[in-house]
Amino acid sequence: MTQLAEKLVWIAADWGSSHLRLWMMTGNGDVLHRLSADCNLDDLAPDQFEPTLIDLVAGFLPQGRVIPVIACGMAGSKQGWAEAPCAATPSEPPSAESAIRVDTKDQRLDVYILPGMKQNSPADLMRGQETQIAGFLAANPKFDGVLCLSGPHTRWAHISAGEVVSFRTFMTGELLALLANQSLLRHTTVSSAWDADAFATAVEDAMSNPAILASKLFSIHAEASLFDQSNAIGRAKLSGLLIGAELAAARPYWLGQEVVIIGENDLLTAYQTALEPLGMPVKTASAETMTLAGLSAAYIALGRDKQ
Amino acid sequence: MTQLAEKLVWIAADWGSSHLRLWMMTGNGDVLHRLSADCNLDDLAPDQFEPTLIDLVAGFLPQGRVIPVIACGMAGSKQGWAEAPCAATPSEPPSAESAIRVDTKDQRLDVYILPGMKQNSPADLMRGQETQIAGFLAANPKFDGVLCLSGPHTRWAHISAGEVVSFRTFMTGELLALLANQSLLRHTTVSSAWDADAFATAVEDAMSNPAILASKLFSIHAEASLFDQSNAIGRAKLSGLLIGAELAAARPYWLGQEVVIIGENDLLTAYQTALEPLGMPVKTASAETMTLAGLSAAYIALGRDKQ
Repeated sequence: MTQLAEKLVWIAADWGSSHLRLWMMTGNGDVLHRLSADCNLDDLAPDQFEPTLIDLVAGFLPQGRVIPVIACGMAGSKQGWAEAPCAATPSEPPSAESAIRVDTKDQRLDVYILPGMKQNSPADLMRGQETQIAGFLAANPKFDGVLCLSGPHTRWAHISAGEVVSFRTFMTGELLALLANQSLLRHTTVSSAWDADAFATAVEDAMSNPAILASKLFSIHAEASLFDQSNAIGRAKLSGLLIGAELAAARPYWLGQEVVIIGENDLLTAYQTALEPLGMPVKTASAETMTLAGLSAAYIALGRDKQ
Repeated sequence: MTQLAEKLVWIAADWGSSHLRLWMMTGNGDVLHRLSADCNLDDLAPDQFEPTLIDLVAGFLPQGRVIPVIACGMAGSKQGWAEAPCAATPSEPPSAESAIRVDTKDQRLDVYILPGMKQNSPADLMRGQETQIAGFLAANPKFDGVLCLSGPHTRWAHISAGEVVSFRTFMTGELLALLANQSLLRHTTVSSAWDADAFATAVEDAMSNPAILASKLFSIHAEASLFDQSNAIGRAKLSGLLIGAELAAARPYWLGQEVVIIGENDLLTAYQTALEPLGMPVKTASAETMTLAGLSAAYIALGRDKQ
């Protein structure tokens, strides 16, 4: 048995629509090892989830002990591994007591999937980020304010008294990726450089006239062609226009609120840079840390339930 | 020699960034034959345009006569076959006198490319649709109003005294295709059916609050998941939201104006259906007919110049 298998107590999983992330955990919440794999949910039948997971973790499993797996994300959707029905707002983010237990053929694993959240009006859904919210609330149980959960689909969630009061999803990140990689703009927005002034101006521009978005996007192409605008400026403008339009629409969420942005890397920084000039106190937290905190809270609660 | 080759007098060409369309023409403007081919301009070096064209038309060419080719579109861009520098607004749409003649190795063809149009502020470009404008003005020389040139990039052009006074490009059609085919929404918007009420409501919705677009787009997914919304409704909503947001931004163009929508098929109908409730007189014209009219006007003018 490897040293890792000896120490492994449980596995944390964030199983999204295109990506699976796994963390091999000790009993006191330390990460022994991280794994990540592309995984298109459209291509997986329900009975293919278990072998997909086993393939990735088999080398780490100890003999003679059952390892709990606590998962969140799209694996719990109707088209996923097993449906974990969503909690409706207003509600606490789902935790252990509403997790569903999945029958597995392989007896070395004991799999639980956490539900997502839904909202009837305006119609909305999340599967995965509610666990980041649970993780954030585990450390900040009295938080009253707004969480901006940045990602391919960024969600703004109003939190009060430990509950998600309401939330709203924006496809901004997915639009950004489609436009940067697959549209006319792929020629003029690919860059590892970044122009901070162009970003700030584009955010302002889109916030003051968000309707004009589809036209301002074409302007990035026209400005590159007519005025030799650099790709660093093009990339910053594309991000700035999309995030600015989102901020205009999400104003009821952030205006006058304490905002914590949860995310990673460039996208987190972009939201932070866009929000700070608006004069609210803005804090940030790592999406990975919050996901792990949420899954850990569920793992601990499950253990308590069993005793 | 085939019967078509006997009758062929000139070739009309619309050479866009992803598609080449050709019409074999008689001397009096009748179409003998239509051809169309996928053709990604990114993959063509300047010296590959001639063989690409020859491959497509060689079977139709007569012996002993030189056939003029009149082309519009991205073939005239810097990255195209040969650059035809754009006319700046305000200006008449470019015609024969500003066409550039391309040197060809094959002496059976005599190739001319029409320039596009540019606008310095706000920065904008068109290559192809200016020829539709020229075609429309050839039949309607006194038109004073707005042309809505619908397509992957829809352009609103303010026309007065035979000139394009200003124009504005929206990436609406390209966004629609990316979202319907390659985003999360591909599952909930693919349909050959169409819900007219859902379209009308989505147009109104987006016009009254265009900022919320990226969130309303996600709602299509949420409504399908929560309320079993049909794909016919999803598809109509997606179109309606994008076109509604464009109409909100293009209001300075259409408000109180005579509007002619130039386009084809479903997209033309969608713009027409969206605009009519707004109370302006809306007419329509076929994009293909207008392109051919514009290229024909250039062909006739070239013949006059030579005499």
